[in-house]
Formats: sequence, C-alpha cells, structure tokens
Amino acid sequence: MSAAKLFVLGLGPGDPELMTVKAARILAAAPVVAFFAKRGRAGHARRIVDGQLREGAEELRFEYPFTTELSVENPRYLAEMGDFYDGCAVQLAARLQAGQDIALLCEGDPFLYGSAMYLFDRLSADYAADVVPGVTGMSGCWSRAGLPMTHGDDVLSILPATLDEARLLERLKSCDAAVVMKVGRHLPKISRVLREAGMFERAFYVERGTMEGEFITRLSAREDGPAPYFSMVLVPGRRGAR
Amino acid sequence: MSAAKLFVLGLGPGDPELMTVKAARILAAAPVVAFFAKRGRAGHARRIVDGQLREGAEELRFEYPFTTELSVENPRYLAEMGDFYDGCAVQLAARLQAGQDIALLCEGDPFLYGSAMYLFDRLSADYAADVVPGVTGMSGCWSRAGLPMTHGDDVLSILPATLDEARLLERLKSCDAAVVMKVGRHLPKISRVLREAGMFERAFYVERGTMEGEFITRLSAREDGPAPYFSMVLVPGRRGAR
Repeated sequence: MSAAKLFVLGLGPGDPELMTVKAARILAAAPVVAFFAKRGRAGHARRIVDGQLREGAEELRFEYPFTTELSVENPRYLAEMGDFYDGCAVQLAARLQAGQDIALLCEGDPFLYGSAMYLFDRLSADYAADVVPGVTGMSGCWSRAGLPMTHGDDVLSILPATLDEARLLERLKSCDAAVVMKVGRHLPKISRVLREAGMFERAFYVERGTMEGEFITRLSAREDGPAPYFSMVLVPGRRGAR
Repeated sequence: MSAAKLFVLGLGPGDPELMTVKAARILAAAPVVAFFAKRGRAGHARRIVDGQLREGAEELRFEYPFTTELSVENPRYLAEMGDFYDGCAVQLAARLQAGQDIALLCEGDPFLYGSAMYLFDRLSADYAADVVPGVTGMSGCWSRAGLPMTHGDDVLSILPATLDEARLLERLKSCDAAVVMKVGRHLPKISRVLREAGMFERAFYVERGTMEGEFITRLSAREDGPAPYFSMVLVPGRRGAR
C-alpha cells in the first residue's frame, strides 16, 4: 500500500464559509485536487474552493459523459457511468501510487448521494482513505429557510424526486418530515403528491440555498414550472411548521 | 428590534475540526456563549469549543431539569421542559436587548432534533437570528464507518429509536437506507426490528463517532446491552453494503 492518502472532502452546501476547518486545512495542503463537472461547466465543487488551493496543485477535472440526456433507467447509463468512474479511479490510483495525497472534492456530504462514493468504492480497498463529512445541502437549505425540521419522535425521510408517483406518495405517508431532492422537472409531480399526503401547505421550496441567487418561498407560492438542479423541497414536521 | 443577533451555531459531530469555518469565526467573536448541559455534566457542545471562546465571554449554562428520569409521554415532561425553555429564552432576550450578540451552541446540526430549536422558536420573531448549519452526527458516523449510505434512487429515513416496535418496523420497510438515533436502552428492540425488515446483516453500530473513545462495529457483532447516548445504528442502502 502506498503511503499517500485519498481525502474525500465534503465541502458543504455552497457557501465557502460552510466548509469545515478540517476540509479547509487538507485542501490548502493537497498536491492533487480532483472534482466532477458537467459538460461545459466549471464544476460546482470546484467553484466552492476558488482561491483556496495550494499553489501549483494539479487539478483533475472529471467531466460526466452525460447528465440528463440519458435516463437512469436506460441500461447504457449504468454501463457508461461505470466506465467513466473506472477511468477516474485509474487516474487517482496513479497519483496515489506516486505518493501524492489527493483531495477529491464533493459538494455537501460525500456519502449522501455523492458521486465521490463511486470512486471511494473503487479505491478504498487498496489505498488509505479519509472521508471528511460536510454540511449537507439540505441542512444549508433548512437553516436558511428558518425551518426546524424534526422535534421529538419525528421521522425524517429523504426522497429523490425521481421516484414514481405511487412510491413517492407511499414513502411520504410514512414520515413526519421530508426532504425531496433532485427536484428538476419533477416539481408538478411533487406538488400533487404532497397535496395528497396533506403536506403541501407546510412545504417550502429552496433554490441555491446558501449561495448567490438563493431563492426561498412557500411551495404553494411557487409556479409549477421546472426547477434548476440545486433546488429542493422541504417539509418540516408539524411542530416546525410556519 | 435590537441590533444584536442570535447565532445558532451547529458545531458538528464532535471532532472540533469538523466545525465550519463560519461557526469558528462567529464563536471567536461572541461576547455571550450559551449552551445546554445535563445535570452534573460539562455539556457536550461546550466541550467541542474548549479553548475557542473569546477572552472574557459570558457563558450561560442551561442545565436540563431532567434527562431520562421522566418519560416523554409523561404530561409533566412537556410542561416542565416548556418552562425550562421559557426561562432560557428570557436570559437570551435580556442579552440581545442589551445589544450583545449570542452564540447558542448546538452539537450536530441545529435543526435536526436540536434543543436550540426550542429557543429559536421563542426568539426568532423578535430578534435577528442566523442559523449556521453544522455537520450532522450521522454524517460524522457514516464517514468514519466508511459506509456510503445512498446511491441513485435510495430513500433514507431517520428514525428515533423511541418509536414503538410496530411503527419502527413499518417505517423501516418503506426505506432503503436508515439511521436509527437515540439508541440508548432500545438496542434489543432495534435489532429485532432490523432482523424482521431484512436489514440486520448490513447494519453498523457507531458509538462516539469522530470523538475520543470512538467504537464502530457491525451490529451483528455487538452485544445486545444498552448503548450510551452518543450512539447510532446505520443501515446503508443495498449498494453501499459491505
């Protein structure tokens, strides 16, 4: 085993000041910084750390082969994403073999729907790895919205909006508080299901929480059109409702 | 409205380095620092910030009138806790009225089962408040355990172990990944229910995650005796199972 270490760095919800002291320290010393980015974009995680890299650090930009062009249900999706992650892991392994520590950037918390998990899965058996937890996007959003989410015995569920309508409804009915992630084009479906579950009136919509261009509103006051990627719907438990 | 501000500071899961840069900055400047503590204890949140307070800062220690002596179901519990929080809010309001900013300390993230919510609820209508999100205890634990929790469409539920057995089972059956909080004396019940839900084999037990005395094991390898307060059970989604 090489002595070098893979640091999987949770960077928090977007505001650079919401990075942990530990992540900032590791970042400032890392000779190699790796991150994911969508085609044609700078990369959200990379933007959070602007101006905080060590001088001369090597940057590895991993560009997703596709984002929403191909549906997750398409068998090509899993296969091509698998190849993509394999290729990324090979590049990281080469640096670790050469004795270089790596900071692998991840918005939010790495182990909550983070792409970095797929590289951790491929490398952690052969190389030392340290996962640095981060403030999740949802914590950033509910703090900014002033929504205490769970009191006492409340159950909180985190639900990807990509679930079909029946499953989403069933899941919502068995929790007191909910976070709906990956909102995008699913907003009309989310609103319908929340109405059915009796949660619509206390739901909030948060776009770009803690970041420039932040927008927070009651879901009932928002138009039903599509939402950008960095948006989520928050349903506080009954005691946290405003 | 007074110009002073109530900062509700999430301090993260226990390791002081997992505090955010923002929380550390606010803490170092705060003339008043308030925190909860159990009877006869220093206070967990207070311990996280040892050595990081501004010189001469006033410390307000709010000691819970009881912790586990009185059951949550006892009507006296809600009434007495309500009186307790009212009294804390009065003390904070006096400082805010006098123009002093306050750092109200909170382990983990303030709006996820945090006691600070009860003071935020009482003060945020009359005083400026800024809630600084923190790394949750669960993020700290699953990072240390090396458990990627949610992939793709996985639903994650956060469940207080205080729920009765039937409800706990019902909730577990409608999620892919789960975090069971407030474990304490409920460990035997949790194990039974996880077996029934087919989740026992991939469950982990984490005690004092990110802190001194940290202990991590497969749940199946742990004795069934009672667990300390800072412990939780983590069930990764199927793709994160080890």
